[in-house]
Amino acid sequence: MDQRLRVHCFTISRDGIGAGEDQSFERPFGHVDPGELMSWAGAAAGWAYRGDGGTRGLDDYLVRAMNRNIGAEIMGRNKFGPFRGPWADHEWQGWWGGEPPFHTPVFVLTHHVRPSFALGETTFHFLDTTPHEALARAKEAAAGQDVRLGGGVTTIREFLAADLVDDLHIAVAPYDLGHGLKLWESPDELADRFHTERVPSPSGVVHYFLWRR
Amino acid sequence: MDQRLRVHCFTISRDGIGAGEDQSFERPFGHVDPGELMSWAGAAAGWAYRGDGGTRGLDDYLVRAMNRNIGAEIMGRNKFGPFRGPWADHEWQGWWGGEPPFHTPVFVLTHHVRPSFALGETTFHFLDTTPHEALARAKEAAAGQDVRLGGGVTTIREFLAADLVDDLHIAVAPYDLGHGLKLWESPDELADRFHTERVPSPSGVVHYFLWRR
Repeated sequence: MDQRLRVHCFTISRDGIGAGEDQSFERPFGHVDPGELMSWAGAAAGWAYRGDGGTRGLDDYLVRAMNRNIGAEIMGRNKFGPFRGPWADHEWQGWWGGEPPFHTPVFVLTHHVRPSFALGETTFHFLDTTPHEALARAKEAAAGQDVRLGGGVTTIREFLAADLVDDLHIAVAPYDLGHGLKLWESPDELADRFHTERVPSPSGVVHYFLWRR
Repeated sequence: MDQRLRVHCFTISRDGIGAGEDQSFERPFGHVDPGELMSWAGAAAGWAYRGDGGTRGLDDYLVRAMNRNIGAEIMGRNKFGPFRGPWADHEWQGWWGGEPPFHTPVFVLTHHVRPSFALGETTFHFLDTTPHEALARAKEAAAGQDVRLGGGVTTIREFLAADLVDDLHIAVAPYDLGHGLKLWESPDELADRFHTERVPSPSGVVHYFLWRR
């Protein structure tokens, strides 16, 4: 069974930045405005958080591909919440309200584990382990389907360093951010290990598709 | 429930031709070589008819979108088979062998109806009716999911003329065919009714995305 680890719709600035520093409860992306960074996705009819209307061109196809054949997600603790260090309590259940958009098991990588819990159709598990071991757990939970690597920047870089990522779709917004957490200096860094396609969208973002050689 | 009528991965030459004349059992696309016309799709990892390998860039995303949220297909009789006029018998069950790739009800438009039959997970029904009525039947069968309009050229043109199509993805191969069944002179013909995006693929085909205004 060919189960893949896939990155989808992960959006960075032209200078490679996927999130700001100084994340807080009020600012989940630090100084970066996620609504602006992700505006290409928010304009698409298939985006989970919008109502009626929206575009149905290239960007919409990519937004809708995000959940295709996905049976589990892996994310870093900073995608799950703004806290660092030991948990004061377990009241925080993520940014997504009572029905998180994952609808699968989600594995949160953290040095500070806590009990698993279910929220809507999503179950969150907390793992203090290596990328290899986390991927093995997620693949088992995905029951034959693929695993999505949800980010953030640091988590994707760790899994790339461990050479565990099979496919990446990275959207590059048409502006620079100057400073923040950087996914790459350039996609050329991955050219020795990944086939790379560059596809400008009519919306202004540039989509990169990378898959393992 | 917003059920849409969608065209996916329908491929034409640069001069708008989607099939040749003189269709026969040996030549389902007449003088046009479907393997050449569809080679962009055949190179993608997600194409139903290929084994291992294949590309995982833009073209692959579009190939994999073909069945997303589809609950029924409508096709013309000439997509179903090479015969014209009354059926000599009912032995012909389509080009696709024992497990057709549709896995849904399929409605074949023909002036010569015959009994429905099931093959694998696909059920073929035969209708001698208008595009409006065929779409109503297909939407009912799709049980809330969308309906794919599978072609060929003549059928898509009929449904466009009746203003029943919501979304089209048309792939334009990078060469001319000179003569044959023509979908359009230019996508500009639909610009008054459809938003249009033009996205060149690294593979050489140009993808057009059209959705109803």
